[in-house]
Amino acid sequence: MAMDAAHAPLLIRRAQRDDVPAIVRLLAADDFGRGREDARSPLPDAYYAAFDAIQHDGCNELVVVEIGGQVAGTLHLTIIPYLTYQGGRRAQIEAVRVDERYRNQQVGRRLLEWAIARARERCCHLVQLTTDKRRRDAHRFYERLGFVASHEGMKLHLTPAPEA
Amino acid sequence: MAMDAAHAPLLIRRAQRDDVPAIVRLLAADDFGRGREDARSPLPDAYYAAFDAIQHDGCNELVVVEIGGQVAGTLHLTIIPYLTYQGGRRAQIEAVRVDERYRNQQVGRRLLEWAIARARERCCHLVQLTTDKRRRDAHRFYERLGFVASHEGMKLHLTPAPEA
Repeated sequence: MAMDAAHAPLLIRRAQRDDVPAIVRLLAADDFGRGREDARSPLPDAYYAAFDAIQHDGCNELVVVEIGGQVAGTLHLTIIPYLTYQGGRRAQIEAVRVDERYRNQQVGRRLLEWAIARARERCCHLVQLTTDKRRRDAHRFYERLGFVASHEGMKLHLTPAPEA
Repeated sequence: MAMDAAHAPLLIRRAQRDDVPAIVRLLAADDFGRGREDARSPLPDAYYAAFDAIQHDGCNELVVVEIGGQVAGTLHLTIIPYLTYQGGRRAQIEAVRVDERYRNQQVGRRLLEWAIARARERCCHLVQLTTDKRRRDAHRFYERLGFVASHEGMKLHLTPAPEA
């Protein structure tokens, strides 16, 4: 069913524990997320353990976009205090997903604008994110919001250490 | 004075409050840091406020490399819990600096190896960092450690909001 977010009230709010299955479905519906998430019911406990860790840490905010009572998008914001930039705080954005039924309706843009406003509110001087180099549409989306791809985003996946 | 770290004992430890001036000197001695830091004595209070915020947050670890009683390098590690990767934790590295007198003596490598080991100890499945695209030597350094430049690192600097 096609939905029209432009004409529905959109609410951005902190995620609650019972939003976790809907958020994981969004993560798993993603091209890159498909192979690494497990959205089957019941969800692996590790998702709830991570949710609890996020909720109990004042530096992390997991949010959802709600449209017509349904979770239509999600974003994770982390506030990090650094000594750099004369003791400046940064806001880092991760795990941005919008339900495909609500694509091209400015839902992502409104979610990012919310995150940027929240970063200001939390006294950050910089908002940062990394995005897979294969996600070319995402780069254009972030560039339109003012982001500059000035850095290499480098990742090292850890394999379990050999038994001692 | 040239120093030879290969023959001096090297200690990696959590930074203390009285290490802040030495850390800020390292940040300010950097080509990109020069214009954005203020290492003059007394240091701006904001550096100490940031240090206190870092020390009181269990997700952040600011460390120094000490050689012969001197601060010879620094690194900031942040542990972030996410729902992605089935509730996986990531370790993020930022603000890596080695005193130029100790360059090319494996001090940076030992600091990064420490951080990767610490990430495992804190149950992270991934270590990540961003590095300015102009720092070509740094890319090679991180690639030798196993990092892959799979992502764009995008930044948005916030200017103060207009007065309401």
